[in-house]
Amino acid sequence: MKNRAYLCLAVIALIGFTTPSLAAQVRTAIEAANARFSALAAQGSGATLAGLYAKDGAVMPAGSDPIRGTQAIAKFWQGAFASGMAAIELKTVEVYAQGATATEVGEYALRDKVGHLLDRGKYIVIWHNEGGQWKLLRDMFSTNVPSPKN
Amino acid sequence: MKNRAYLCLAVIALIGFTTPSLAAQVRTAIEAANARFSALAAQGSGATLAGLYAKDGAVMPAGSDPIRGTQAIAKFWQGAFASGMAAIELKTVEVYAQGATATEVGEYALRDKVGHLLDRGKYIVIWHNEGGQWKLLRDMFSTNVPSPKN
Repeated sequence: MKNRAYLCLAVIALIGFTTPSLAAQVRTAIEAANARFSALAAQGSGATLAGLYAKDGAVMPAGSDPIRGTQAIAKFWQGAFASGMAAIELKTVEVYAQGATATEVGEYALRDKVGHLLDRGKYIVIWHNEGGQWKLLRDMFSTNVPSPKN
Repeated sequence: MKNRAYLCLAVIALIGFTTPSLAAQVRTAIEAANARFSALAAQGSGATLAGLYAKDGAVMPAGSDPIRGTQAIAKFWQGAFASGMAAIELKTVEVYAQGATATEVGEYALRDKVGHLLDRGKYIVIWHNEGGQWKLLRDMFSTNVPSPKN
């Protein structure tokens, strides 16, 4: 009888105490997904980047309604490549994990093909785990650089 | 003996099955916090709005590094009031809850004192529950309106 009670406590403790470790695992997985994002960005294909988003994913840039769906996201990134962006650097600052969903706060830098800084800013990405793969569900970012009129 | 086993299962089931209900509770609490945010915004005090943020909270607007801490956040909102903003409307679209932290995706509208639309856009807020109160931990937003040069 006592054994079952201990087992019960052990299961509950396990649920509680594994949380930090799971959070660390999710952070590592998201950092790996970001490394993949940057590596694929270097190939300059909007369609390839769009494949890293969830099927119902959205990019949420300034000056636009949210851009939803794989085709529209591919077009958005293709436009960024066409404007001279050649590299996307991502740095994870915080991760708040919650089962199949996680929220990441980070910093980005965009560079042209000779490595000159085009823009730097911050982002919040809501990630969704789809069958073991972390996909971008919501991707919001904005420049840290003041506009010229300011 | 069986009673304990059933109790054990019941506890585990409770942890699992109450999750959606908790998520709904969190969403309701966040919508209430937003209503409070809008009501206090109508008073036009940056310091009052800043009190709704976590102590280590940050506002993450376009064209600026993240604005961290109560005093800097108060100054940011005071500047917005000084520029003519008189009302902030918030609409929760999605909530991803995770214990003491929750991520909200929403839409905003800013209006002047006679109700004219100044700006509309989207936001992601990471909320943190501090002793029962939901506080804004990360507050990122950007306009949906294209800049004139586009």
